[in-house]
Amino acid sequence: MPLWQDLAHRTVAELEASGIRLRLDTVARRIDVERRELLVTDAVGGEETIGYEKLVVGTGAVSVRPRIDGLTGPDPLGPTDGVHLLHSMADTFAIMRTLEERSPASALIVGAGYIGLEMADALTLRGLSVTQVEQLPEALPTVDPGLGARVRAELERHGVDVLTGTAVTRIRQADSGSAGRFIVEAVAVDGAAVSRSVDLVLVVVGVRPNSELAAAAGATLSPTGAITVDRQMRTNLPDVFAAGDCVVTHHRLLGDSYLPLGTTAHKQGRIAGENALGGTREFAGSLGTQVVKIFDQAAARTGLRDHEAVTAGFEPLTVESEADDHKAYYPGSHRIHTRVTGDRTSGRLLGVQLFGHRHSEIAKRIDVAASAIFHAMTVDAISDLDLSYTPPLGSPWDAIQAAAQTWSQKLTRP
Amino acid sequence: MPLWQDLAHRTVAELEASGIRLRLDTVARRIDVERRELLVTDAVGGEETIGYEKLVVGTGAVSVRPRIDGLTGPDPLGPTDGVHLLHSMADTFAIMRTLEERSPASALIVGAGYIGLEMADALTLRGLSVTQVEQLPEALPTVDPGLGARVRAELERHGVDVLTGTAVTRIRQADSGSAGRFIVEAVAVDGAAVSRSVDLVLVVVGVRPNSELAAAAGATLSPTGAITVDRQMRTNLPDVFAAGDCVVTHHRLLGDSYLPLGTTAHKQGRIAGENALGGTREFAGSLGTQVVKIFDQAAARTGLRDHEAVTAGFEPLTVESEADDHKAYYPGSHRIHTRVTGDRTSGRLLGVQLFGHRHSEIAKRIDVAASAIFHAMTVDAISDLDLSYTPPLGSPWDAIQAAAQTWSQKLTRP
Repeated sequence: MPLWQDLAHRTVAELEASGIRLRLDTVARRIDVERRELLVTDAVGGEETIGYEKLVVGTGAVSVRPRIDGLTGPDPLGPTDGVHLLHSMADTFAIMRTLEERSPASALIVGAGYIGLEMADALTLRGLSVTQVEQLPEALPTVDPGLGARVRAELERHGVDVLTGTAVTRIRQADSGSAGRFIVEAVAVDGAAVSRSVDLVLVVVGVRPNSELAAAAGATLSPTGAITVDRQMRTNLPDVFAAGDCVVTHHRLLGDSYLPLGTTAHKQGRIAGENALGGTREFAGSLGTQVVKIFDQAAARTGLRDHEAVTAGFEPLTVESEADDHKAYYPGSHRIHTRVTGDRTSGRLLGVQLFGHRHSEIAKRIDVAASAIFHAMTVDAISDLDLSYTPPLGSPWDAIQAAAQTWSQKLTRP
Repeated sequence: MPLWQDLAHRTVAELEASGIRLRLDTVARRIDVERRELLVTDAVGGEETIGYEKLVVGTGAVSVRPRIDGLTGPDPLGPTDGVHLLHSMADTFAIMRTLEERSPASALIVGAGYIGLEMADALTLRGLSVTQVEQLPEALPTVDPGLGARVRAELERHGVDVLTGTAVTRIRQADSGSAGRFIVEAVAVDGAAVSRSVDLVLVVVGVRPNSELAAAAGATLSPTGAITVDRQMRTNLPDVFAAGDCVVTHHRLLGDSYLPLGTTAHKQGRIAGENALGGTREFAGSLGTQVVKIFDQAAARTGLRDHEAVTAGFEPLTVESEADDHKAYYPGSHRIHTRVTGDRTSGRLLGVQLFGHRHSEIAKRIDVAASAIFHAMTVDAISDLDLSYTPPLGSPWDAIQAAAQTWSQKLTRP
């Protein structure tokens, strides 16, 4: 049984052995850019000023709290009631407390993005009856609806009650005698009212950058509220770097965007650290590469979807196809569903979306596509890549290459 | 239960519907380059001359028959005895006949390359007791011995009797009363004689190009006997193209080599066909990317190993490291063993070798490395790739990126 402590990459002792002084239970309150000082308060409110030569801001993101009656207002429902936002370790501890102390039989998850899907998977495996509500027309709205429908089918196959195109309007304590502790009221896209009675409510509808500290010191923010940084992770403030979920994300195809992801945060943090020590390393940029496991399946994307490519000034063509993950004559093969987006004019590969079995190497197949987009390859040139083949694990033309060839055929013979 | 017919990509009817005339049981005997004619014989020996405008030669490879007493000479042991070479469909049918008609309890496989390993896996699963003999010091000699030792350990874990550094010298019929039908005699690297009594012998020690037809017509051959072609798959003979296991392989780092692989043959065949119709497409080159499943594990490689890099004029450094296939706190993680070869001077990534669980996405991880080498990336730049992450399937720095970072550390702090 893994412990939550295992989530940490390093122990306090390991960090301090490397020369880092770790100040826990300490909140950064104000950056004084002129004096190069940081005002902090400790656990009991005592103030202290720390001088710096270089400062790296990594304040991350905070959960979006949607306007739902019962979540906002003077006396909102919260963790002690069994209504949880989910972003930090503290949020997770609170959910674990609810699970252990109240043994809820049912849960409703507001949101069917990456985190919401992972929670549906985890809570179902834990034995809870799960309802998932998504305001947009399909589950996992970061992929095209055709693949999102496959995600929804996998949720439903495992007993999850999925309500798409449905907005939660109110969460309230149920009357005694009700099946669950809460009544969640929602409205479907056709205006129909729906409600569910559940014991636990999770609200996971995304995050926004936690940029107030830097902004108060004069840091420029993007329209999304993220701290503006250059590709060396420098803010507009002298000697102040920033990285992670609190900053704008340089996207290789879109320019500045906001895509808070762990992979990006790791890269940016490493660059900010190196440059704070005098380096000039640049963040190469994100492609928004993501993968999520949903029970026995996985969905992944990299690069641009059709409408994003239009916004970015391309003339995209998106073609869906399917192929075997490995030769079908070898036992245990599964179909992989692929959507390839390329530019009609230049032939350039712009984006790939994948859906398939969790053992169909979906995560690393999207990485092959991400590597190709990174190098601005054309869809046609994907067939030039020398990819591996053995019948139990692939095909002489990998599923990605077969999908690329289907795209090229569709372009010339629509 | 899959049928052997499922191995075919297309049926005769599908091929002929596309306008191809398929002539089965027909052997190409002579190319008359001047007259642009091909002399063929049919199943009963009847000769016919077929005119062509463009000719594509795809005569493939033939099995190497090693100098082993009992395999060579005037009356060699063969398929009707239960001693098999393994390359063609006909070879497979012969083995299936031996398996079905003689129900052998034991098999000895000469060779521990890709095909030999696959046969050890398949015959063990079929219930045979398998001995595997490899002349070179370790199993799977196309990867470094450290990873080959892991391959051997996996074979042994499944009961395969592995004899490495051992050369088979003689195969003979056993006397009646012997445990098996054959006595296989071998000599270990230290000179010790070893022998095994088995019911079935498989000899899989590689292939050589089947280039006689083209050579007789004047085609230039490489020192390995493969037909010389340019990157458009043109031979030196006018209007004669060649592709697949019978031709030299353009390697992106080595130049001309001979690496008969299905993936390469598919690419070359497509290019030869397109160019025979007037195209000018070029073969982008091989990196020798390969993967093989051995029971529950997989081994893979792409690019150059240390000694190959030296031969190619690089100053390589090869560093082995290990990482989790996905976050260890999520159940079911396995370690991946990686060997990264890079150039000390330029920092360029030259090769990657991987060993890990069959569900650790080894095949597609090697493909990410192959894509990086294809684009001449440095080892350092691998960390710039925007690869996917979710705890059940990866880490924020993928195993490949962690291995690249270890290589860079080793280069600067040996």
